[in-house]
Amino acid sequence: MAEYDTVAIVGVGLIGGSIGLALREHELAREVVGIGRRESSLEAAREVGAFDRGTTDLADGVDGAEIVVVCTPVDLIADVVAQVAAACPPQAVITDAGSTKAMVVAAADEAVAGRAKGPRFVGSHPLAGDDRSGPQFARANLFVGRTVVITPTDATHADAIAKIGNFWQSLGAKVVPMTPAAHDAALAATSHLPHLVAAVLAAATPEDLLPLAASGWRDTTRVAGGDPELWRPIFAENRAQVCHALDHFGATLEAARDALQRGDDDRLLEILQQAKSRKAMRDALGD
Amino acid sequence: MAEYDTVAIVGVGLIGGSIGLALREHELAREVVGIGRRESSLEAAREVGAFDRGTTDLADGVDGAEIVVVCTPVDLIADVVAQVAAACPPQAVITDAGSTKAMVVAAADEAVAGRAKGPRFVGSHPLAGDDRSGPQFARANLFVGRTVVITPTDATHADAIAKIGNFWQSLGAKVVPMTPAAHDAALAATSHLPHLVAAVLAAATPEDLLPLAASGWRDTTRVAGGDPELWRPIFAENRAQVCHALDHFGATLEAARDALQRGDDDRLLEILQQAKSRKAMRDALGD
Repeated sequence: MAEYDTVAIVGVGLIGGSIGLALREHELAREVVGIGRRESSLEAAREVGAFDRGTTDLADGVDGAEIVVVCTPVDLIADVVAQVAAACPPQAVITDAGSTKAMVVAAADEAVAGRAKGPRFVGSHPLAGDDRSGPQFARANLFVGRTVVITPTDATHADAIAKIGNFWQSLGAKVVPMTPAAHDAALAATSHLPHLVAAVLAAATPEDLLPLAASGWRDTTRVAGGDPELWRPIFAENRAQVCHALDHFGATLEAARDALQRGDDDRLLEILQQAKSRKAMRDALGD
Repeated sequence: MAEYDTVAIVGVGLIGGSIGLALREHELAREVVGIGRRESSLEAAREVGAFDRGTTDLADGVDGAEIVVVCTPVDLIADVVAQVAAACPPQAVITDAGSTKAMVVAAADEAVAGRAKGPRFVGSHPLAGDDRSGPQFARANLFVGRTVVITPTDATHADAIAKIGNFWQSLGAKVVPMTPAAHDAALAATSHLPHLVAAVLAAATPEDLLPLAASGWRDTTRVAGGDPELWRPIFAENRAQVCHALDHFGATLEAARDALQRGDDDRLLEILQQAKSRKAMRDALGD
């Protein structure tokens, strides 16, 4: 017997599509429903087998769902959660997959608040992805060994935390609970800042020098190939924390520039060594 | 019949080892001689089959060589070229594989100058590599489809340019001639700056947040896993150009920070779009 009855996925791109593929591959759900805004966006997800049933009608899609995962761009999540909450069964648990949490979770909590019988909501952020977007890059093992941060608040029901924690674990992920604010501060440093730095580096490289950009440049700027429209709202929703992380980065960058200009190569070496040490520490943590 | 008689490689690490493997795999040289400073450093290269004969005696190793490739860290190249020039046959052609060219080539030109009969020198920089160093990561196809910049000067003999150009092409590379100064300005932007930015990003990431650093962080900081001792002299030898590239990067970074803080998300989107466009242009050039 499948672990879940109906799981509805709103937004079947790389993340939503991978959730669907994983659920279907391991027969974890009786039915996976894929919900898209347009028939055209559902079509690519249907081709890779990301769901059992596809629909562009959100209310119809979440009717009868046990779990609803909202995988839209972050600026749409709160509205979609409100629509889902109004249409899904009261015993359903809703989560999301957004890269920012404070604004999303506050709005989603408000959308489900006052509904004594539910549904319940708890925020999620799977730390998995790619510079490529779209269901054609979805894969069933995307979450295996990856971390998913879940972000309960004082308003979150314990049942919802347990259910969504188990859900991600059933897809192979490690689950780490954090407050939405702590999540946003951490991810500003580990994800949003690297994205911004990579984008600035790529944008600042003169076109005529691109033939001389080899694997170092390509690795360092890889994430800048991601969809700008998906990243714009991430930066907008985590503005203050990204600015803070950027200032911390800027101070170290200034120290490196100063050492370089003054010929203080020992200081520069220290920064390179600290960087290599951080890389080794991260690598030691595994995938 | 092999294309070359004896090819001597001084410094048999990732680059030197890969040259040796490529020469041997395609039977391009009658004999490949590997020259190391210590027996221990030769041993790992011997194990992967990077040369036919290994020696720690430089004069013995280059005696009879048709081509000598100096693959030491950049701060040692000029001295090694002088030693090679004093010991190799006058008809030999010497090149190197250093990541900076202006200081190296000026010193190397001086080392071979006044030797009317030769040997000849022309600088090279294969744009191939890895964040890993050491002959254990060497591979015969490292240069296939990659660009090698060669940096002739007014002092360079035409024969040497042709011979070294053909040499890299025989390993599968595309050869691009540039002046040493133009090379250093370009590579400051496309290689040295990305390395510095990646290192600063890794160094500035708080240790306790590393468990939340996923694939985006790991890609963006990948090169910072490289050997700090190899990179220290690269920055030292290209100080002014790296500072210049850093200032250009800093101006774009400041524009991004300003847009982020002011809530000018359209401006931020422009930077993200320009970055994606640069990535697409680079990808279109192939490997």
